[in-house]
Amino acid sequence: MPLDSLPPDFASILGPAGIIADPSDMEAYLRDWRGLWRGEAMAVLRPATTEEVAACVRLCARDGIAIIPQGGNTSMVGGATPEAKPRQVVLSLARMNRVLEVDTADMTMTVEAGLVLAHAQRAAEEHGALFPLSLGAEGTAMIGGLLSTNAGGNTTVRYGNARELMLGLEVVLPDGSVVNGLRRLRKDNTGYALRHLFVGAEGTLGIITRAVLRIFPAARETATALCAVPDEDAALTLFRRFRTADEGAVRAFEYMSGTGMDLVTRYVEGATLPLSERAAHYALVDLSASRERAGLRALMEGVLEAAMEAGEVTDAALAESEAQRAAIWRLREEHPEAQKRAGASVKNDVSVPVSAVPTLIREASEACRALIPGARPVPFGHMGDGNIHMNLQQPESMTAEDFLARSHDIMDTVNEVVRRLGGSFSAEHGVGRLKTDMMAGWRGGAELAAMRAIKAALDPLGIMNPGKVLPGDA
Amino acid sequence: MPLDSLPPDFASILGPAGIIADPSDMEAYLRDWRGLWRGEAMAVLRPATTEEVAACVRLCARDGIAIIPQGGNTSMVGGATPEAKPRQVVLSLARMNRVLEVDTADMTMTVEAGLVLAHAQRAAEEHGALFPLSLGAEGTAMIGGLLSTNAGGNTTVRYGNARELMLGLEVVLPDGSVVNGLRRLRKDNTGYALRHLFVGAEGTLGIITRAVLRIFPAARETATALCAVPDEDAALTLFRRFRTADEGAVRAFEYMSGTGMDLVTRYVEGATLPLSERAAHYALVDLSASRERAGLRALMEGVLEAAMEAGEVTDAALAESEAQRAAIWRLREEHPEAQKRAGASVKNDVSVPVSAVPTLIREASEACRALIPGARPVPFGHMGDGNIHMNLQQPESMTAEDFLARSHDIMDTVNEVVRRLGGSFSAEHGVGRLKTDMMAGWRGGAELAAMRAIKAALDPLGIMNPGKVLPGDA
Repeated sequence: MPLDSLPPDFASILGPAGIIADPSDMEAYLRDWRGLWRGEAMAVLRPATTEEVAACVRLCARDGIAIIPQGGNTSMVGGATPEAKPRQVVLSLARMNRVLEVDTADMTMTVEAGLVLAHAQRAAEEHGALFPLSLGAEGTAMIGGLLSTNAGGNTTVRYGNARELMLGLEVVLPDGSVVNGLRRLRKDNTGYALRHLFVGAEGTLGIITRAVLRIFPAARETATALCAVPDEDAALTLFRRFRTADEGAVRAFEYMSGTGMDLVTRYVEGATLPLSERAAHYALVDLSASRERAGLRALMEGVLEAAMEAGEVTDAALAESEAQRAAIWRLREEHPEAQKRAGASVKNDVSVPVSAVPTLIREASEACRALIPGARPVPFGHMGDGNIHMNLQQPESMTAEDFLARSHDIMDTVNEVVRRLGGSFSAEHGVGRLKTDMMAGWRGGAELAAMRAIKAALDPLGIMNPGKVLPGDA
Repeated sequence: MPLDSLPPDFASILGPAGIIADPSDMEAYLRDWRGLWRGEAMAVLRPATTEEVAACVRLCARDGIAIIPQGGNTSMVGGATPEAKPRQVVLSLARMNRVLEVDTADMTMTVEAGLVLAHAQRAAEEHGALFPLSLGAEGTAMIGGLLSTNAGGNTTVRYGNARELMLGLEVVLPDGSVVNGLRRLRKDNTGYALRHLFVGAEGTLGIITRAVLRIFPAARETATALCAVPDEDAALTLFRRFRTADEGAVRAFEYMSGTGMDLVTRYVEGATLPLSERAAHYALVDLSASRERAGLRALMEGVLEAAMEAGEVTDAALAESEAQRAAIWRLREEHPEAQKRAGASVKNDVSVPVSAVPTLIREASEACRALIPGARPVPFGHMGDGNIHMNLQQPESMTAEDFLARSHDIMDTVNEVVRRLGGSFSAEHGVGRLKTDMMAGWRGGAELAAMRAIKAALDPLGIMNPGKVLPGDA
């Protein structure tokens, strides 16, 4: 496929530091990190300011060049990877990586879209505050992408998704005009909530360039435990015990399966189970509070004792130090890495009402085992907000290739259970290009028609991240 | 103005109980409760089901009849009142007033749009839970209107606006199709967040018919105090003291002026100040917690003691009973009623970053006094989320009519200060028809253009609540 060449006026806007056109330098921007997609681009644009973004978008609109906005390129669903088309550019926000302001009076932080999440967390920390968004890719993922995909992660149960952490946005629209919505107001009812439309739009309606984020008082106390539980229902009951005892204290409540923990302890160096014996199911409880003398240790022990008496927890390890806390979290965070080392896997990022999580885990696991005998379900994730990564590991007797050829069958099988339980086929990863085919079946009729109408209204030329989110644009 | 007559097929959809056409019976639907606007309608439609709403909307689309959706008709900005036009109907959601489900496992409540807020609160209470939205009009305002205006109220500082309390919506679009978004998921990233677009759209993009709302564990402990503070800065410092001591405990933090409190104690029977002497400024602190042994009384006393030592609080009354708590809240809630009895007033529902609230109160008060000598600023409201009702009471020497003739000058004067402080001209009341003129100046350029594009995309006939939110439709 011959690529078109980039018109010369891009160089006059961006200068030599702002354009990557050498094929080998571009390669990392053309592939997704999971290795599932690779596309083409005339160039990678690296603007340094909102004005440069806007000027680039205006040129693209003028010349009919499609734009693929890209942050840390950590999408699980190919949301930031270009297609194989001759007339498109990747627009990387990586140079717009500044913290513009941290305000502990208003508890807000104003940042550029290319700021890496870990750096945003650190900036809040340096001011004695907390930016609570937390997820596996935090060392690479950028604020613009996290907002564009409405990222979730470990602390959603307490602080909400990226959406709930955002007060204002600056966005470059597909015609190159700029929405100056960088307000830091808790209340602002003045017309349509455009900022909420751009959050989760995966770059198909415009490019987020700056954001005002909420920050919170830092935790003064934490308490973390890994619990062995007899079954999925007991895990949910344990969550409800904590929520009832102190709704505000639960920062994270994660479920892990025995299968998943076995993979982690087998394939990840230094990962060991802090319990005396293997269990079939685990729950990770993380409590935190910003107040003095919160008594979280006593709360943790009290709830666990009651749960043990009721037979809902069979063993538990409480972190006695920050190192032990990190080690417990590592068992959870290394699930994707362990799965990768153990062979091929198919990921299903799904959600159901919280009460239906045990049924989801049981029924989807069973359906997957029936579909592919020997395949190993590795469900794990955010039980407290109904979001389970209902992943499936290849059978040891099967080749990776044969297994991955069944990807769509597997996703369909899981999704059939999810649909029956009133859930969603994408909880926190978004649609990207992986799941556009599912949109018509799940969000068909009036919902999809309204989304298409909005897309056509804001991006009539269809130049903004084509082929993502909405089906049939490819 | 001769009204057109309602086509007969509406009657076949709604039956006699579903249509009000008698002029005297219609009157209450044609006026807003503030008495500022009155419009016309061919009829008031009172559908009982989503299907009936959809069928009515389809007929209206077919016949080019404008629709004014109406809940409790408590808008402060004329958002639910028809214009004086010959070809429109009011569509009241009042008959769709059922609680469909309260689920304490998922902590959700599914309701119809015509449910009165107080009834929603009671339904949650009956299940041992809390629906935290709380505001003056709660005995009349309905869920559909509260969501359509993204209502705020007293508890936003802790629980967020109506938007944050909503998980899913069912909406009838302007073509009569139905968006079935009644999901009860904490995480669902599958395309554009349509539900967030309808929240705050004030009925101009569609009609909310049902909603899934979040509920919370009920409070096990509360502590409430009325504090006399020397100035606005001290009030803000007090808020920050409580937030620092226990961010999660502050359910409400309200500011009131000496002038406002004087009006309440003078004009409202039974309203008395529980402090030994009058102050120039007051703060109402309301703490609550769902956990056992939360120690809120000790927290309250500890913070107030420190604030008194620092000279930031000069006197305080702690509620010793539910009756005392209600009496303190009544001093705050009766502000609008007292203002009404004291003569004419101009309301300014504005917001600024929390840190700028003291400056807002001082500078806007001064500017108003300079504009109209003798006029009395009565600022009060939700200091903890930056939202102050920057109201102005007529001078005793001026007629109400002369004073109200200056309404727009007064709003402009307040808004000039608000704009300088990075605030918003409508914090929680919305735009309605009162503030459409301000949209171009405040949200002009790309923002307003994007809003107009969305309106045209979803309501190409312009039949949904015309004349509201967007300027120049009238």
